Amino acid sequence: MRIVSLAGGIGGARFLRGLRAAEPDAQITVIGNTGDDITLFGLRVCPDLDTVMYTLGGGIDEEQGWGRAKESHVVKEELAAYGVQPQWFGLGDRDFATHIVRTQMLNAGYPLSQVTEALCARWQPGVRLIPMSDDRTETHVVIDDEHGRRAIHFQEWWVRLRASVPAEEIALVGADDARPAPGVLEAIGEADVVILPPSNPVVSIGTILQIRGIREAVAAKTVVGVSPIIGGAPVRGMADACLTAIGVETSAQAVLAHYGADLIDGWLVAEEDADVRLDGVRVVARPLLMSDPEATTAMARAALDLAREFA
Amino acid sequence: MRIVSLAGGIGGARFLRGLRAAEPDAQITVIGNTGDDITLFGLRVCPDLDTVMYTLGGGIDEEQGWGRAKESHVVKEELAAYGVQPQWFGLGDRDFATHIVRTQMLNAGYPLSQVTEALCARWQPGVRLIPMSDDRTETHVVIDDEHGRRAIHFQEWWVRLRASVPAEEIALVGADDARPAPGVLEAIGEADVVILPPSNPVVSIGTILQIRGIREAVAAKTVVGVSPIIGGAPVRGMADACLTAIGVETSAQAVLAHYGADLIDGWLVAEEDADVRLDGVRVVARPLLMSDPEATTAMARAALDLAREFA
Repeated sequence: MRIVSLAGGIGGARFLRGLRAAEPDAQITVIGNTGDDITLFGLRVCPDLDTVMYTLGGGIDEEQGWGRAKESHVVKEELAAYGVQPQWFGLGDRDFATHIVRTQMLNAGYPLSQVTEALCARWQPGVRLIPMSDDRTETHVVIDDEHGRRAIHFQEWWVRLRASVPAEEIALVGADDARPAPGVLEAIGEADVVILPPSNPVVSIGTILQIRGIREAVAAKTVVGVSPIIGGAPVRGMADACLTAIGVETSAQAVLAHYGADLIDGWLVAEEDADVRLDGVRVVARPLLMSDPEATTAMARAALDLAREFA
Repeated sequence: MRIVSLAGGIGGARFLRGLRAAEPDAQITVIGNTGDDITLFGLRVCPDLDTVMYTLGGGIDEEQGWGRAKESHVVKEELAAYGVQPQWFGLGDRDFATHIVRTQMLNAGYPLSQVTEALCARWQPGVRLIPMSDDRTETHVVIDDEHGRRAIHFQEWWVRLRASVPAEEIALVGADDARPAPGVLEAIGEADVVILPPSNPVVSIGTILQIRGIREAVAAKTVVGVSPIIGGAPVRGMADACLTAIGVETSAQAVLAHYGADLIDGWLVAEEDADVRLDGVRVVARPLLMSDPEATTAMARAALDLAREFA
């Protein structure tokens, strides 16, 4: 079975671990969001790609959901002692090494997709991880606070402000010119099913779908989505703040309608959202818990079972 | 009193600490060797400048003589886990932060002299530290081993090979085109005395003297040198391997002759080398020990006393 999954960070990565366990023989290609990428201290940081890589490669901080296990923060403290900014982004020492290797390869001219492949050679995530694009895109958030109306990097809004200031607009800068990374459209074209994990529908899945040709390629396939909203609240994270910014209600129903029946064939919701309906979409209610590996695997299996109904 | 000192790494830095203690009100300008600088993992490393900065700023690993106190090596281990090279250069986590800040400033277009000043704003070394040049030079060593005759970076010879393969030639690549950094010639011009600490006469002091105009400017001043050789052996390090490469015997006499009477006015030697003589040079024998701060300060005081004889 050939599976393609679009993925953001923590939620997507955990779901992918379940997917890999549910279908050990499947050939899984993960198309990772790079809209959150940021350059800090001259180093290129790809938070979503790394969360997927570390989670599937056994290096993740399980409790936190991002960053490396057994992490220390000496470099960050030293940078702060020099007074350099920003100090609000939590980079650990182990993580720094990843960004140093990535930056050196990018500066040497390798595209991000090849850099990601090289990093994954160490982590052996058991999936093929491809960034959505080798071209640089950046998710910006328009806010209006005491400093005036302005666009800031998604990470500044998400990490520094913790989405406490309402987003008036969220835009993926560079989306019009960005091309899918090599292998992305091919993997989707050859896929038996495309799975949308319970990642953020705006700044994770939404950004990937904005890259030229990806949405059309995905829509042509059997697509099963897992609702990131349970009973009107995000499973985790602050997806509601992003949905509000684009005028979408925080509900399993509204997110499904936002994706659209042209994209989605099957929609997996939590049992309390069993009444969700959209013409042309098969909605199935199952426990949507990723509280432990077994529950996550069961949830991934439910998504695959739903996909098989369309085979 | 205005003092200029040319300096390499460990030996020079320790001597400078004694100099600062011996003459607390002096205005000390240190011209640092940058021939040893190397780019590792895309980061610019300036071992001698950092050793001076850390030593005088209270951040040095006292036992080792280089690198930061209370250092950890997480980033280096992680880089090794990715399989990136080289793995023979010992960069600690705290140290990495310095190189990250430096590299970011250099990439932003700041010259090394301004970067060094910015880094010193944190360390407050109590001296003005200026790199010998903002232009890039690099000490290369010609060796001939089982892989053939070739030039390698000084650090590869010094750190990886521990100078175990004889150097056939040592050259400062880029020396012909390099200009002294802003402030270097001015500081020498205004100095009451120029002190050459017991740094390596070939790859530390020798490289600085090769930068256009520096040797002439220094020679016009009262210059007191401290012999890096005691009783035919280097005080520390492997200076003998460098001296042999340029055809100079490892003795206080030969190093003095190598510097020349046109450069040196006073030459401080250890008591066992009291018979050293060179026309036009006043040779004084004193204990040349840097075993503890008091001994080091006494040694620096002896150099200054010798300088005052020429006032």
